[in-house]
Amino acid sequence: MSIGTLILLRHGESEWNASNQFTGWQDVRLTVKGEAEGKRAGELIKEAGVLPDVLYTSLLRRAISTANLALDAADRHWIPVVRDWRLNERHYGALQGLDKAATKEKYGDEQFMLWRRSYDTPPPPIEVGSEYSQDADPRYADLDSVPLTECLKDVVERFVPYYESVIVPELRAGKTVMIAAHGNSLRALVKYLDGISDADIAGLNIPTGIPLQYDLTESGDKLVPTVPGGTYLDPEAAAAGAAAVANQGKK
Amino acid sequence: MSIGTLILLRHGESEWNASNQFTGWQDVRLTVKGEAEGKRAGELIKEAGVLPDVLYTSLLRRAISTANLALDAADRHWIPVVRDWRLNERHYGALQGLDKAATKEKYGDEQFMLWRRSYDTPPPPIEVGSEYSQDADPRYADLDSVPLTECLKDVVERFVPYYESVIVPELRAGKTVMIAAHGNSLRALVKYLDGISDADIAGLNIPTGIPLQYDLTESGDKLVPTVPGGTYLDPEAAAAGAAAVANQGKK
Repeated sequence: MSIGTLILLRHGESEWNASNQFTGWQDVRLTVKGEAEGKRAGELIKEAGVLPDVLYTSLLRRAISTANLALDAADRHWIPVVRDWRLNERHYGALQGLDKAATKEKYGDEQFMLWRRSYDTPPPPIEVGSEYSQDADPRYADLDSVPLTECLKDVVERFVPYYESVIVPELRAGKTVMIAAHGNSLRALVKYLDGISDADIAGLNIPTGIPLQYDLTESGDKLVPTVPGGTYLDPEAAAAGAAAVANQGKK
Repeated sequence: MSIGTLILLRHGESEWNASNQFTGWQDVRLTVKGEAEGKRAGELIKEAGVLPDVLYTSLLRRAISTANLALDAADRHWIPVVRDWRLNERHYGALQGLDKAATKEKYGDEQFMLWRRSYDTPPPPIEVGSEYSQDADPRYADLDSVPLTECLKDVVERFVPYYESVIVPELRAGKTVMIAAHGNSLRALVKYLDGISDADIAGLNIPTGIPLQYDLTESGDKLVPTVPGGTYLDPEAAAAGAAAVANQGKK
């Protein structure tokens, strides 16, 4: 029996997705295509009848805007909203702002893939006070220290405890919880939900703008998916989108 | 000395403002003009440097969308958000959906102004289950009973205790609180803040889309405005907008 339902939504195309730059915590806008993806996500949610009772977002505009557009299209604009930095994209360190193709050319395929997909090797740290660092950003004023770089393991370690302590109680109360977040913060959560190994998570890509539904059930003291891997609300578009993410960095 | 700051924002023009229909709890969209007003409100807030730390909205799309647009324009899209039905527009009872000019013609000037501006005379109740009633709306499922009509006094009685118990503690903590709401819910709050009499509140109109700033200070056990009536961030546009509201119902 399903306890609660998660709807995971990666933000629509951002300006830096479009220009093929590493984004991380840089707060870029959606493109017009990304806005359309947000609206379409809401239509898919409405058609599927999996209506969110509460929304969790990161503190980044591309996830917030996507969620606003999706909820408006699904007639759920009025549900409670919680924003938290723990849902943020992985901090991309000194790579933030760099062109992905140029970085690949400069450092080579192996180093490029290590930075993109290694579980526990972070990129070099960003310089404090530099153009694309967030150390002086008021939205992170309450953090003991703002990250200067993160690997996926770091994202798991900040996001999963938040998921367990804050979001799981909502799911256990039977709610449908929507999480509007990012490629790597959602990979961190999916790794945990589906019990994917540190090695195998490298091969998992999450497409932009397509809601991924997980119905959950109790197993021991943990909530586990009734369908491993969850169910995309538009499976064909999701397969095409995941392939596109895997190809990033190619010119 | 100012304790905290309130920014009151009435939603931009809605489809039913434009078509001159009584709206109340009916959940209509912003017009293109209304969307531009929301964005402009955010630019005014940013220029004035009164940056909200937290947002309170009603459960109605026109206030939620206006706030989303304003916060995005002010680079404050990431602040915490609280939505509550107590900030909703006055429920307009059986008048919801009716044309304002036709209603005035049918019932006469005196009855029309009584329904619009009387402090304690509500319009006739809306019929349960009718097209423009909200008794089956899921967003109000937790209410003991969904209103069928309200006068301004009813709005004061639901909103002011919420303001005192939930919003005032934020202000006392020194925060800048933005409230995105409606013509009559904001009139209810302004009546309370400025100590306006039941008779005099009839003459107060709040324009759409122009932030109204109240700096507050302790007086006895109450927070009172340092400047009675507050300060519009664009005073000229506010005066013109208030006159336009006063003229509604004229063909």
